[in-house]
Amino acid sequence: MKKGIKIATIGGGSSYTPELIDGFIKRYQELPVSEIWLVDIEEGKEKLEIVGNLAKRMIKKAGLPIDVHLTLDRRAALKDADFVTTQFRVGLLDARIKDERIPLKYGVLGQETNGPGGLFKGLRTIPVILDICRDIEELCPNAWLINFTNPSGMVTETVLRYSNIKKVVGLCNVPIGIEMAIAELLDVDHSRIRIDFAGLNHMVYGLDVYLDGVSVKDQVINMLTKLEDSSLVKNIKGLKWESAFLKALNAIPCSYHNYYYKAREMFEKTKEEAEKEGTRGEVVKKLEKELFELYKDPNLDIKPPQLEKRGGAYYSDAAVRLISSIYNDKRDIQPVNTMNNGAIASLPDESAVEISCVITGEGPKPIAIGDLPVAVRGLVQQIKSFERIAAEAAVTGDYNLAVLALTINPLVASDRLAKQIVDEMLEAHKKYLPQFFKKK
Amino acid sequence: MKKGIKIATIGGGSSYTPELIDGFIKRYQELPVSEIWLVDIEEGKEKLEIVGNLAKRMIKKAGLPIDVHLTLDRRAALKDADFVTTQFRVGLLDARIKDERIPLKYGVLGQETNGPGGLFKGLRTIPVILDICRDIEELCPNAWLINFTNPSGMVTETVLRYSNIKKVVGLCNVPIGIEMAIAELLDVDHSRIRIDFAGLNHMVYGLDVYLDGVSVKDQVINMLTKLEDSSLVKNIKGLKWESAFLKALNAIPCSYHNYYYKAREMFEKTKEEAEKEGTRGEVVKKLEKELFELYKDPNLDIKPPQLEKRGGAYYSDAAVRLISSIYNDKRDIQPVNTMNNGAIASLPDESAVEISCVITGEGPKPIAIGDLPVAVRGLVQQIKSFERIAAEAAVTGDYNLAVLALTINPLVASDRLAKQIVDEMLEAHKKYLPQFFKKK
Amino acid sequence: MKKGIKIATIGGGSSYTPELIDGFIKRYQELPVSEIWLVDIEEGKEKLEIVGNLAKRMIKKAGLPIDVHLTLDRRAALKDADFVTTQFRVGLLDARIKDERIPLKYGVLGQETNGPGGLFKGLRTIPVILDICRDIEELCPNAWLINFTNPSGMVTETVLRYSNIKKVVGLCNVPIGIEMAIAELLDVDHSRIRIDFAGLNHMVYGLDVYLDGVSVKDQVINMLTKLEDSSLVKNIKGLKWESAFLKALNAIPCSYHNYYYKAREMFEKTKEEAEKEGTRGEVVKKLEKELFELYKDPNLDIKPPQLEKRGGAYYSDAAVRLISSIYNDKRDIQPVNTMNNGAIASLPDESAVEISCVITGEGPKPIAIGDLPVAVRGLVQQIKSFERIAAEAAVTGDYNLAVLALTINPLVASDRLAKQIVDEMLEAHKKYLPQFFKKK
Amino acid sequence: MKKGIKIATIGGGSSYTPELIDGFIKRYQELPVSEIWLVDIEEGKEKLEIVGNLAKRMIKKAGLPIDVHLTLDRRAALKDADFVTTQFRVGLLDARIKDERIPLKYGVLGQETNGPGGLFKGLRTIPVILDICRDIEELCPNAWLINFTNPSGMVTETVLRYSNIKKVVGLCNVPIGIEMAIAELLDVDHSRIRIDFAGLNHMVYGLDVYLDGVSVKDQVINMLTKLEDSSLVKNIKGLKWESAFLKALNAIPCSYHNYYYKAREMFEKTKEEAEKEGTRGEVVKKLEKELFELYKDPNLDIKPPQLEKRGGAYYSDAAVRLISSIYNDKRDIQPVNTMNNGAIASLPDESAVEISCVITGEGPKPIAIGDLPVAVRGLVQQIKSFERIAAEAAVTGDYNLAVLALTINPLVASDRLAKQIVDEMLEAHKKYLPQFFKKK
Ligand SMILES: [Mn+2]
Ligand SMILES: [Mn+2]
Ligand SMILES: [Mn+2]
Ligand SMILES: [Mn+2]
Repeated sequence: MKKGIKIATIGGGSSYTPELIDGFIKRYQELPVSEIWLVDIEEGKEKLEIVGNLAKRMIKKAGLPIDVHLTLDRRAALKDADFVTTQFRVGLLDARIKDERIPLKYGVLGQETNGPGGLFKGLRTIPVILDICRDIEELCPNAWLINFTNPSGMVTETVLRYSNIKKVVGLCNVPIGIEMAIAELLDVDHSRIRIDFAGLNHMVYGLDVYLDGVSVKDQVINMLTKLEDSSLVKNIKGLKWESAFLKALNAIPCSYHNYYYKAREMFEKTKEEAEKEGTRGEVVKKLEKELFELYKDPNLDIKPPQLEKRGGAYYSDAAVRLISSIYNDKRDIQPVNTMNNGAIASLPDESAVEISCVITGEGPKPIAIGDLPVAVRGLVQQIKSFERIAAEAAVTGDYNLAVLALTINPLVASDRLAKQIVDEMLEAHKKYLPQFFKKK
Repeated sequence: MKKGIKIATIGGGSSYTPELIDGFIKRYQELPVSEIWLVDIEEGKEKLEIVGNLAKRMIKKAGLPIDVHLTLDRRAALKDADFVTTQFRVGLLDARIKDERIPLKYGVLGQETNGPGGLFKGLRTIPVILDICRDIEELCPNAWLINFTNPSGMVTETVLRYSNIKKVVGLCNVPIGIEMAIAELLDVDHSRIRIDFAGLNHMVYGLDVYLDGVSVKDQVINMLTKLEDSSLVKNIKGLKWESAFLKALNAIPCSYHNYYYKAREMFEKTKEEAEKEGTRGEVVKKLEKELFELYKDPNLDIKPPQLEKRGGAYYSDAAVRLISSIYNDKRDIQPVNTMNNGAIASLPDESAVEISCVITGEGPKPIAIGDLPVAVRGLVQQIKSFERIAAEAAVTGDYNLAVLALTINPLVASDRLAKQIVDEMLEAHKKYLPQFFKKK
Repeated sequence: MKKGIKIATIGGGSSYTPELIDGFIKRYQELPVSEIWLVDIEEGKEKLEIVGNLAKRMIKKAGLPIDVHLTLDRRAALKDADFVTTQFRVGLLDARIKDERIPLKYGVLGQETNGPGGLFKGLRTIPVILDICRDIEELCPNAWLINFTNPSGMVTETVLRYSNIKKVVGLCNVPIGIEMAIAELLDVDHSRIRIDFAGLNHMVYGLDVYLDGVSVKDQVINMLTKLEDSSLVKNIKGLKWESAFLKALNAIPCSYHNYYYKAREMFEKTKEEAEKEGTRGEVVKKLEKELFELYKDPNLDIKPPQLEKRGGAYYSDAAVRLISSIYNDKRDIQPVNTMNNGAIASLPDESAVEISCVITGEGPKPIAIGDLPVAVRGLVQQIKSFERIAAEAAVTGDYNLAVLALTINPLVASDRLAKQIVDEMLEAHKKYLPQFFKKK
Repeated sequence: MKKGIKIATIGGGSSYTPELIDGFIKRYQELPVSEIWLVDIEEGKEKLEIVGNLAKRMIKKAGLPIDVHLTLDRRAALKDADFVTTQFRVGLLDARIKDERIPLKYGVLGQETNGPGGLFKGLRTIPVILDICRDIEELCPNAWLINFTNPSGMVTETVLRYSNIKKVVGLCNVPIGIEMAIAELLDVDHSRIRIDFAGLNHMVYGLDVYLDGVSVKDQVINMLTKLEDSSLVKNIKGLKWESAFLKALNAIPCSYHNYYYKAREMFEKTKEEAEKEGTRGEVVKKLEKELFELYKDPNLDIKPPQLEKRGGAYYSDAAVRLISSIYNDKRDIQPVNTMNNGAIASLPDESAVEISCVITGEGPKPIAIGDLPVAVRGLVQQIKSFERIAAEAAVTGDYNLAVLALTINPLVASDRLAKQIVDEMLEAHKKYLPQFFKKK
């Protein structure tokens, strides 16, 4: 990486892209990017043009020597890339809306990552990711794959188990969002806070919180019991934690834990919202439309403030600080999805976990935490089992495994419902699931 | 154990006792019992007299030199005992009925072992069991404690973690019931079947099935997909497994798995039954009444056939064959609850597991199975976490832990419901839960 | 295995064969063998004829319908075999003598299994074993491979890691010899003794000893501190254990432990014996010559008593009782080399260990022992590391790995000596080590 | 730690103290120490005065507001200390000389840490350390105990297992010495080098080496094969590694590995040196005498350059950078001895290991390395077993355990020699080993 850094962004036409561009601009001094290749597929061409041109205007305004390339040729984008970021959505938001709507009919939450929605997003995404991995192996074998595509834990697990790519990191803005929210609660600067994160993507716990190196966990848990909305990140709305539960848990849950520790309430809430305002996918679809209208404006040359509503807070921060720490061998601590390697005793060594790591020039090195608290081991293990079986179903196209994955998912917990949902969703997403419709 | 064997049965006034006596009679040649002490508490005195006298008549009829003692003095019963069996119920069937009825109001299954009912049965039972352990330590330190009292897994876990008694085995008739049912399905004698059991009490899986030493798992799973009632034991009614699920699971679930893999359906079914025929506790209460009427008959000197309906099929078989194998160092294979000791990789070494063991003169030695199938690890871990936190709550009387235990239980999965159920049930069982009502 | 059982014995011309034939004769009622194929290589043809004809006479005398085939065609012997036993020696006793003599020059014990001798025996044997495995896969995929060939632990490890054969058991007469010796010390019948064995081949410990199911370990250890010769088996001569050491060890070592816990003394003793009586290989060579003279006698039709001196006591017993227990799904306990599968915590799950197992129709199932005593973990781990690196060296022909394997071996403990010994021995055994002399 | 920091140094009369004082002076800006208490015992009073006065002169010259206290009252020194450092030697250098001389008579290396010398240094030191721990618990329960006293691994293990002090770090200058030496070999600044260290104290391996975040392991190993003296630290002289060995090992050994991978050569070398120049203890004794002569000079007010020969290179650097990183929550990476917590799979979670850690305000957090390379697992495990049994012997005064510890030590490997050495050394150190001479 002597010369400038080449970034390839798969799904470059995403509405998030200005966020990412903004991040590269802000950290240019430490991270001298020379080329950004935004790549998308034929169906996303128009969006790619719109957002790509905004990216070019942003960089021009910043006065930086970064070349932005817009392309539908993934192989050209990958050739000799130093970092590959992925943020695509197979089937676009319409697929997400089905992921949300269909399960609701069966009295089950869709949940875009660790529920039926996540299963089907995984089934659609995994064959594409593995295809990208094969290209990386050939075209840029030394590149780091930074995956933002959800379900990020399942995708990282799949890359570790089913590809030859070892330089992969799964990323999420939930942990950084928790850090920011807790810094705000304590009214201190983010840099003074450190949290020991451990668990899985969207199933991560803060095992301890330090202010200037001294544990303030008890104080923080106490503050959390008083919040009306337990979600610490903006794109999810949570409910209030029961004080007795949270004190005995003695760890900081993430926003997604609302789905497992308030299963019925969240179902009712989500169903009601779906009826009133539409599902999250429907809301986002509208938001995106507005965003792209904004992006089209040839006078716009900064990240528009409206983007924050989209839910990607700290997204660019998480992505660009990770890339910079790898590039600069910074050895700072960041929570990412990487191979467990014994850091969490009760999860397999070779599985992906979301955990606080030291970020070095050779990638993230997880800090050993011993084991998860007894109270959370089972649920975490269960989601890991779900991820693994879902990944295997995606790779093999095995119908029975898809039913099994959904049956053991705590949001479903019924083999009959699992089968009904799988049956309807397979049909609905047929176009993107060729592995399940092979001729025998 | 040179002379005759002394058995002490805590909760000797149970309706199950004739089953146990029958077992000792049948195996007398290999297991020369000389004394059976049936011990109960003041409230159970009448039942103890009735069932104890039946026991005496049974032994007399068999013409065996076994002394049956009926007593309310537990310490006298324990003194120099060789085997202590426990089958008591703190709060009797009325407490069970509350365990079942209260959760239903909140839309939650009671479940007498691994649900809210099991939690409260555990909270009531554990202090008593630990008290018995202290007596055993003093009065019969070399005795084996054979625990039948539910929740048997939680109780065994507690004894291993919170007492000095290491010679403890938890017993259940579910695994032997599965063996019998599968032998029947295959139309072969029970002795030709061996199943590799692994998991927890009421959460046990058959990982493989052998007929004359050769695996017949595929055939058995195929047969199981065709059963209308998936429960293989008589006291639980199950539903039909989805074929896709069972084939991908590739293991034999136990009847209690209906509660986790058919959560909603089982809730509906249980609720409906509670409304129509009454809860299981109510049904059993009626059954017991009838049984004790029968037991009173001075002409009855055998185990009455009506006892089978009570749900204790193979109960005496499981208990007496275990005691005999320990006594005779038989080294045969039986599924029991014992310390894991590394036999199942993803569960703690020092936790109780239900697993196929070689039964030796020094107790059960678990056969290493490597690890549970990926699909079941999470659920098993979750119930183990529930058991451990419930046990800690029982020992400490910590309210928050009780709420936590119930929140992480897959049948509840809501901190709000957990708190409401704990609150109502603590009040309902107040008399038997002094540890939660200590003056501060 | 409906009809009679077919046995294929690789290295059938061995002087041990009458022992094995004797075993099959004695257990014929429970193990109806119909064919025994003795197979050997061209160089062993004469011996094969001699011992094979004795085998035929023995079976004729016993009046059993077993066909004995003598052949140089390994594939014909393997075709549809039910059990394959291996007892061959690549390079014959002359190679063993070099394995013993060369290290002595460097002040190092040869040790035919876990020392430099064992390394080179492994390097010669492993390619042949893997070749046999490929034949088994093709010709008798359901057969059990019962390996007696030393170094038996290293060979079993290799089969588990580098072949597709999973039905493999490594066998040794040391554990059964210890059981017999302790039964004799206690003056009781062998059947009343059970020992919990755990460790590796020729590095196995008795963790507890039971008489009629009750631990008599303290008594046995006390007795062992009084023996002048600590070896409990006949072909090894040991020295007296220091009482303080043995009591603190609190486990029963095997005879080979003399080499590690009396390293210098055993070196001196072995060197002296080599000078006086010749090495063990030289002694055995003479013994074998005498044995084959006896075998030639056309009137001999039983196993000659002189065979016992050869060192194979209980060899046939160990082999035939294992085969019978698998065939009959006996579920009795025997110490064998099999995959660890978590039974010993501090050794890899997928490594071969020597451990007490339940022998079922699907092979040995190890009994979980938790972990080895702290005092022995390191040495056992070290020999396992030696075995694994030696196996890798044998498979790859990597010179550096051979030097590494010997450097970490506790009998050598010097990189300089390791290199010198490897260099001289590679030359000495060049003919049998083609993998180290490939053209680059 | 709001006000100035209080340091208590047990064994403050050590010749190393000026090194430590120098370190505190250099880092004063980041580590505002206000009090240093040098504490020693009656026999060390004179040395304490000499070195203490030098310390005062050094601080005066630096113009820093640090109070230096000299005292024989350990409790006064510990009262409210923030950091306690230990660098004492029970029995002084005369005891060390016996530790070295006695084993040589038996043909065994003394080795001040992981050999017989280390065993007896441990037996003398451990009761004192546990006594200090009890004082810390009472007088400064929030202090960090930074232990430099050898055998540092065994001492740290003991504190973790047998005291209530959890805030303990064991420190050694070997890893930092390796980093410095490799930086020098590569001719780059130390700050650009990072090594993944893992193992035990004086048994630590560099698993990888990075220059600016990129692995240069192959290059470094290649360079190491060319060094005539393999020791990378100044106080130990090593021999040349065999290239084949080092390449297959594929890790960077530490200087102490010469004792295990060149056992015989190092014995010969050490014996010869003992005969010619005296043992290391004898050399150091002479050096110390000269140093104290220098220290007496009232005009000396800096760390004298001659101190470097003493062997404590980087000692102050290691100690003060650790204290500063804890104090300042620096989150930088340092190799220290701390609780394993799963970071190295094949060592117990609760044992002390020497490993690269992130140093936070709550102490060192080990970075998970998965497992040690196969080739080194056994030896590392063996030394850990030695440490654990030695610690138990020290705590209990159990003679048999002392013999066992020495028998399993790879430098001894003989129960007879172990007994003889233990017997003679117990007598020689009788005064400092009261636990072994209690009246029964
Ligand atoms: Mn996310
Ligand atoms: Mn049961
Ligand atoms: Mn052997
Ligand atoms: Mn050191």
